[in-house]
Amino acid sequence: MQFTDRIETAIASAIGKGQLAPSPSKLASALHYSVAPGGARIRPTILLSVATACGDDSPGVANAAAAALELIHCASLVHDDLPCFDDANIRRGKPSTHRAFGEPLAILSGDSLIIMAFSVLTEAAAIHPDRAIKLLKVLAECTGMPNGICAGQGWESESQIDLSAYHRAKTGALFIAATQMGAISAGQDGDPWDELGARIGEAFQVADDLRDALYDEATLGKPAGQDDLHGRPNAVTELGVEGAIGRMKDILSGAISSIPKCPGEAMLAKMVNAKAEMLTPMKWRKSRPSAIPGE
Amino acid sequence: MQFTDRIETAIASAIGKGQLAPSPSKLASALHYSVAPGGARIRPTILLSVATACGDDSPGVANAAAAALELIHCASLVHDDLPCFDDANIRRGKPSTHRAFGEPLAILSGDSLIIMAFSVLTEAAAIHPDRAIKLLKVLAECTGMPNGICAGQGWESESQIDLSAYHRAKTGALFIAATQMGAISAGQDGDPWDELGARIGEAFQVADDLRDALYDEATLGKPAGQDDLHGRPNAVTELGVEGAIGRMKDILSGAISSIPKCPGEAMLAKMVNAKAEMLTPMKWRKSRPSAIPGE
Repeated sequence: MQFTDRIETAIASAIGKGQLAPSPSKLASALHYSVAPGGARIRPTILLSVATACGDDSPGVANAAAAALELIHCASLVHDDLPCFDDANIRRGKPSTHRAFGEPLAILSGDSLIIMAFSVLTEAAAIHPDRAIKLLKVLAECTGMPNGICAGQGWESESQIDLSAYHRAKTGALFIAATQMGAISAGQDGDPWDELGARIGEAFQVADDLRDALYDEATLGKPAGQDDLHGRPNAVTELGVEGAIGRMKDILSGAISSIPKCPGEAMLAKMVNAKAEMLTPMKWRKSRPSAIPGE
Repeated sequence: MQFTDRIETAIASAIGKGQLAPSPSKLASALHYSVAPGGARIRPTILLSVATACGDDSPGVANAAAAALELIHCASLVHDDLPCFDDANIRRGKPSTHRAFGEPLAILSGDSLIIMAFSVLTEAAAIHPDRAIKLLKVLAECTGMPNGICAGQGWESESQIDLSAYHRAKTGALFIAATQMGAISAGQDGDPWDELGARIGEAFQVADDLRDALYDEATLGKPAGQDDLHGRPNAVTELGVEGAIGRMKDILSGAISSIPKCPGEAMLAKMVNAKAEMLTPMKWRKSRPSAIPGE
């Protein structure tokens, strides 16, 4: 099965269980709405790529890990879009969850998706309890306080920001989780995969800065110019467009060098290069795909 | 160690880990603020009572379970108090988290506390992996969709409410979790403990209806008359005060009958009777304690 099919099947299965009757039907609909149709599914794709590079001897565990990571990512988008944060009206080209279902159901959707992510990994314990427990640990670390995406968002309420901690938590954490969880799913140690995840996260941050600075809302499928608006640091402001693209490519070269020895090393390097191309703004790409994968 | 000490120590330890540097300090403070000083800690006390009745052969696991359950409860209070839900200005006699720290940090506190609850149980896997996994499963079920407290809150957005599913999810779920998780922490099967939790939950719901109808905000430490205000079902409206008290006592008699055979059966029955007394409005109590334990 292709990665996309594995990811969508695992997410749909988790959401389906969350919708079993008797359940409040609007919240059940909001859960589905918040995860589908998906964006580029970048994090779970990286996760499955690393699992495959490590042998992928237990695909059921890897699929659960991929679904859990994407559910957390979707939960963070739903909560970050709320009026008290980014106040975003659109996401993935359609009304954001709170615009479509109201704030109460958006908050509950985010909460439910977080819980569902942990639930999916707990169920994977039936296949491999030791791997499931390690995966749960990584997921909690990359999601909560003091180093996960909640911490990353929390930094935006501080008057003095620790920029390195901020970026690592806000964007890096889920990419580090992606590479570590991919390795753990296949029975390998997660720690050597930390650097690859961190570097992909850094590159992604620069790419996101480029997209935010260069594209309009219709092209992005979400509000543009948000960094300027919220006074957030942006690599384009600092380095210019060409400079930012150069920096992104440097980071990804470093990412490729950091790939631990494994059977699928060459395949992974190719995947990172493909992601680099995908992350590059269209005008600067070697090829010109017709659509931009949204987040 | 007394139950109270075990609960407070376990919660403080979890919150402390979530505040390790570098972390955003306001969110770190908001986490502490949202859990301390606590209310009556009713759910973790029931959990430890059941664990003790079952032999409590692994107190570290029981303490983790108690902390996890209370963290989830605190998270639900923080989110339920938000302007788009109950819009509560006070909680446990002080400003609610969003009033003290603003909405963004209140939302992030709730999210972080949910994740922390799962993290605490994951760490308990180092002591007893099999029990930790069972505890994680129960915690996810009683918290998320389709049957947990998120579902309970979600029912309030429906035009047609399944009242039985609503009460079981909104109030019952965490009491069922308390009794089941207590038994699992001590190495016992959780299922036979479902009924005790469900009945305590029902009694608690009636007690909460009584408190909401009879007390003022200053006495409760949270807004009063909320059921009338939000058009929610209330046992006092249906049965009158004496009728509601009678119903609560009937439910608790049933709870005592449902206690599974275990070494601490008599002690547990005593605990349930003590809770019944505590839940009865002061004017109708046999004794008259000076303070009402807040939620």
